[in-house]
Amino acid sequence: MRNGRLQIIPLGGLGEIGKNCMAVRCGNDIVVIDCGLMFPEEELLGIDVVIPDVSYLVENRQMVRAIVLTHGHEDHIGALPYVLPQLNVPVYGTRLTLGLLEGKLEEQLPGFKADLRVVKPRDVVECGCFKVEFIRVSHSIPDAVAVALHTPLGVVLHTGDFKVDHTPVDGELIDFHRLAQLGERGVLVLLSDSTNAEHTGYTMSERVVGETFDEVFRRSRGRVIIATFATNIHRVQQAILVAQRYGRKVAVAGRSMVNVVSIAHKLGYLNLPQGVMVELEEANRLPRHQVAILTTGSQGEPMSALTRMATGEFKQLEIIPGDTIIISAVPIPGNEKLVARVVDQLFKRGAMVLYEAVSAVHVSGHPCQEELKLMINLTRPRYFIPVHGEYRMLIRHAELARELGLRPENIFVAENGQIIEITPKGGRFAGRVSAGRVLVDGLGVGDVGNIVLRDRKQLAQDGILIVVVALSQETGQVVAGPDVISRGFVYVREAEALMEEVKAQVRAILDRCIERKSLEWATIKSEVRETLSRFLYERTRRRPMILPIIMGV
Amino acid sequence: MRNGRLQIIPLGGLGEIGKNCMAVRCGNDIVVIDCGLMFPEEELLGIDVVIPDVSYLVENRQMVRAIVLTHGHEDHIGALPYVLPQLNVPVYGTRLTLGLLEGKLEEQLPGFKADLRVVKPRDVVECGCFKVEFIRVSHSIPDAVAVALHTPLGVVLHTGDFKVDHTPVDGELIDFHRLAQLGERGVLVLLSDSTNAEHTGYTMSERVVGETFDEVFRRSRGRVIIATFATNIHRVQQAILVAQRYGRKVAVAGRSMVNVVSIAHKLGYLNLPQGVMVELEEANRLPRHQVAILTTGSQGEPMSALTRMATGEFKQLEIIPGDTIIISAVPIPGNEKLVARVVDQLFKRGAMVLYEAVSAVHVSGHPCQEELKLMINLTRPRYFIPVHGEYRMLIRHAELARELGLRPENIFVAENGQIIEITPKGGRFAGRVSAGRVLVDGLGVGDVGNIVLRDRKQLAQDGILIVVVALSQETGQVVAGPDVISRGFVYVREAEALMEEVKAQVRAILDRCIERKSLEWATIKSEVRETLSRFLYERTRRRPMILPIIMGV
Repeated sequence: MRNGRLQIIPLGGLGEIGKNCMAVRCGNDIVVIDCGLMFPEEELLGIDVVIPDVSYLVENRQMVRAIVLTHGHEDHIGALPYVLPQLNVPVYGTRLTLGLLEGKLEEQLPGFKADLRVVKPRDVVECGCFKVEFIRVSHSIPDAVAVALHTPLGVVLHTGDFKVDHTPVDGELIDFHRLAQLGERGVLVLLSDSTNAEHTGYTMSERVVGETFDEVFRRSRGRVIIATFATNIHRVQQAILVAQRYGRKVAVAGRSMVNVVSIAHKLGYLNLPQGVMVELEEANRLPRHQVAILTTGSQGEPMSALTRMATGEFKQLEIIPGDTIIISAVPIPGNEKLVARVVDQLFKRGAMVLYEAVSAVHVSGHPCQEELKLMINLTRPRYFIPVHGEYRMLIRHAELARELGLRPENIFVAENGQIIEITPKGGRFAGRVSAGRVLVDGLGVGDVGNIVLRDRKQLAQDGILIVVVALSQETGQVVAGPDVISRGFVYVREAEALMEEVKAQVRAILDRCIERKSLEWATIKSEVRETLSRFLYERTRRRPMILPIIMGV
Repeated sequence: MRNGRLQIIPLGGLGEIGKNCMAVRCGNDIVVIDCGLMFPEEELLGIDVVIPDVSYLVENRQMVRAIVLTHGHEDHIGALPYVLPQLNVPVYGTRLTLGLLEGKLEEQLPGFKADLRVVKPRDVVECGCFKVEFIRVSHSIPDAVAVALHTPLGVVLHTGDFKVDHTPVDGELIDFHRLAQLGERGVLVLLSDSTNAEHTGYTMSERVVGETFDEVFRRSRGRVIIATFATNIHRVQQAILVAQRYGRKVAVAGRSMVNVVSIAHKLGYLNLPQGVMVELEEANRLPRHQVAILTTGSQGEPMSALTRMATGEFKQLEIIPGDTIIISAVPIPGNEKLVARVVDQLFKRGAMVLYEAVSAVHVSGHPCQEELKLMINLTRPRYFIPVHGEYRMLIRHAELARELGLRPENIFVAENGQIIEITPKGGRFAGRVSAGRVLVDGLGVGDVGNIVLRDRKQLAQDGILIVVVALSQETGQVVAGPDVISRGFVYVREAEALMEEVKAQVRAILDRCIERKSLEWATIKSEVRETLSRFLYERTRRRPMILPIIMGV
C-alpha cells in the first residue's frame, strides 16, 4: 500500500457488543487495538465463546507491529489466548491490563511466552510508522486508556471504553487536558465507544454506588453479600472500605473474585486494610452483623457462587433470613431472565435483595450522550467512526456527531471487515477484508460451523429418531431389525405404539425396495427419511432428525 | 368441605408471568378465574406453549360451576382449547373476550361446542353459592373486567390485569364507583395484579402513545409502519385515526393483526372510517406519504410480518429508505435480543426506527405502585393476595400493602398450588393441590417430560455420536462395524482422524469383551459409553450423547 494512505479496519465490535478488535494500517505497518471475545448468543448452541476472525492479520503478519490494549475486560483481551499463538507480536498495555492478561495466558496457554510490554498513561511507543500514545480514561475497571495513534496523516484517536467520572474512586481523572491538546492541534479520526449512545444525559459517578453501599451497610443487621464483576475493582474497593467503616470483616467467594482481588492487590490497585479480610470459614463463625461477602454471579451465571447460594448448592455459605444481598450490576442483554431467577430464589430463602430495577446499586462504565458530545467537541475530529455497539447504537452515535456539526460525508458507520480509507483528499469505504466470528467449543476453535449448528438446533427442538437395519450383502434381505431408537423426541415408554408403527413403515419400505430390487442404500435411506418425516409430523407435529443406518452383513 | 370456609387456590400466574388461573372454592362450589397459557422459557427446548396443570379441577369437575374470564389475552384464555375438552363448563366473559376465544376454539378445536356466555360490566351471574360480578377496568385490551365473587363469607375481588387510565381511548373509565362501593361495604379478599409492582409512580395513559403517533405522522414524509400487539385495539384505533388525520390509507399485515382487526370491527370495538382501510397491494401502489401499515412482530417473533420485513422475506412489502417504523411495545423479558436484532436490520435497510428505548411509543397495560396503592385503599380488603407476577414482584406488592397498613398476617404471598383458606376466624395456608406446568409440543400435551428435555439439552450442547456394530448371535463375533456416525458434534469431514480413533477404541473394547467372554450387551454398551465419553472429553472438551447400538445377526 502506498504511503499517504491510512486504513482503518474493524475486525470486531461493530454491529455487536463484544469481541472488540480494530486494525489500523499505514503503509506497511499495522497496529491492532484490542482483541476481545464475546459470549455466544442463545442460538449458538453449545458454543463457549466467540472470537474475531483475524485471518487478515495472520495473512499480513509481517506487517503487524503490535497489539495495544485499552483495558483488561474480556471483550478487549479475551481472544488473545487464541490469537497470540498465531501472531506473537509485542502486546502493550497498562500494568493491571497486562496483569489480568498474564493470568489468562498462564491458565489457558501454560508455558507460552508472550511479549508483554507495560506502559503508563502519556507514554508513547514507536510501532513502525506509528507513534502510539496512551491516555487515561475512566471506566468500570482501573487503568483504562484511550489510544492515540500518531500517523504521518494525523492523529487517530480510539477512546476504548470510557466514561467521564468527575469523582473517580482512585482520584485518577480522565485526561481531559491531553484530549484537549490533541483536539487543539487537530485529530484526524475519532473512534468512540457507542455502548450507551441510546441514552440521554450522562452516566453517574462510580461513587454513587459507594453511597448506596454505605446506606445499606448502615441499615443492615444481618450479613451483607455483594455480587459484582470481579474486575470492577473500584467497586470492590468501595465495598471493602464501607464494610470496614461499619466494623465488618470481608470474605471473598467465587473463583474469579478471588483471582482478581489477589492480582489487583498484588499490583497495588486494591487497598486491603489490615485485619479486614477473612476466610469464608472464619466469616461463618462471626456474628452476622460483622460480616460482608464479596462474590461473583451478578449476571446469574449458572455455575457462579451467587447462583449456587440462591439454589442452596454453595456449601461454604447458606443464605438465611436477615441476609441482605446486593446485585451490583445491570443484566447484560440476554441475561435478564437468569438474573431475575436468582433474585426470586434469594427472596424465597428469606433474604432482602437489592437489584438494579429497584435500587441505585449500579452505574454504567460507558458514556451517555452528553459525555459522547464532550468527547467529540473536545477532540474536534475531521472524521468520525462510532465503534463498540450494535448497529442502532452506531447510528445514534453518528446522528449525535452530525448534530454537533461534523460533515455527514466524514462520518462512517461501518461493519466489521469494511475498510475505511483516509487520504489527504478524503475518506471512503475501500473494500473489505475477511472478518467475522470464529466459534470456540471446548478445545475446538472454528471447527463448529453452520452444519453442526443446524443439526444441534434440530436436535434441540425435536430430538432424533434412529432406524437401524442389517441387510445381507449377498441377498439384500433383512437380517436383523429394523430397530428404532429415539432421544429427545417422545418419552419412549409412552410412545411404544408409535414406535411399532414406525417399524411397520420401515418394513414396508424395505419390502417394496426388495420387491423392486432397488437396493441402493442411499435410496432406501432417503425413502425412510421422507416417509417417517411425513408420518411423524402428521402424528405429532414434530420434526425430529431422522437417521437411517444400514449395516451390511 | 364445610361451609363457612373459603379456599383460594392459585393454579397459575404466581411466581411467574403467564398461565394465569385461579380457583376459588366455597363449600362444594368452585369458580375458576381465567385459564391462560405461557410461552416457554429458553431451556424448555422445542416446547411450543406451557399451560397450567388443572388436574385439581378435572378431579373435582362436578364442583366446577364456571370459568370466568377477565379479558382476552393469551395468558388469560390461551389454555382453554386444551382444558375445555376435559372440563366443558360454562365460560363467562365480555363480548370481545369471548369473540377472541371463539376464534381460537374454531381454529384449534373445530366443531367443539363450548358453552360461552356473554356478560357486561356490572352484570351479576349465579354460580353455585357464588354471585359473580363483573367490574370494568382499563387494560391494554378493551372490555377487560375485574371479578367480584360474592360468597357467603364476603367479597373476593380479583382485579384481573388492570391499570388506571384517566383518559381511556374508548372513554370507558375503570369503575371506581363500584370498587369504592365494595370497599365501603367491606372486601374480604383482594387479589391484585403485581406485574409492575417494582415500578414507582403510575402508568401513563394509552393516549400518550396516540400523541407520539401524531407527532411521527406529522413529520414523516415516507410510509409509517406500526408494529404492535394485535389485541391492543385502542392502539390500533389511535393509529388508524391518526393516519386518517394525515391523509393516509391504512393496510394491515400479519395474520393475527388481520384476524383481530376483523373480529374487533365485527363486534363494534374498532371504528374503521370509510375509505381508510386498503389492501396491502393497493398500499404498495399509493405514494409513500399516503400510506400507513399496521403489523405484528413487535416482540421480534421470528415468523412475524415485521421480522420478515426486516430480513427481506416479506414478499408483499419491502422496507426502503424513508420508511419510518414504530415498534410500539416493550420487549417481554427474554425477547430483548430478538427485538434488538429486528431494529438493527430495519436500520440497515435505511429505515428510521422508533422503539421503546428511545421514544414514547409504548405504555404499559399494568398498574405501577401508585395505582396499586389506589386499588388497595379503594377496596380496603381484610386479606390481600398479590397475583400475576414473579416472586420478587409479589414480595414488593405485599410490602406495599403492609406500608398501607394491612396486617402482615393477613397478607399471603403464595405459590401455585398452595391453598389459602379463609374462615371467620382468620386466614392460613392449608396445604396444597397438585399444580404446575404442562408442556405442549406439537400435538403432544404433557408427553414431554424431564427425560426428553434433558436429552434435548445434551443434544443441543454437544450433539450425538452413534456407534453401531453387528454381533453374531451364535459366536458373539463382530459381523459388521463398528460404524460411527455423529450429528451436531464435530463436522465429520474435519474430524475423520478422530472418528477412526473412536472406531479403534470400540474395536479394542469388543476384543476385550470377546476375550473375557463377557458378551452381555448391556456391559458392552456401558463400557463403550464410558470409554468414549472420557476419550472425547479429553480430546475435545465436549460431551456428546453417546449411543451404542448393537445388532444381533
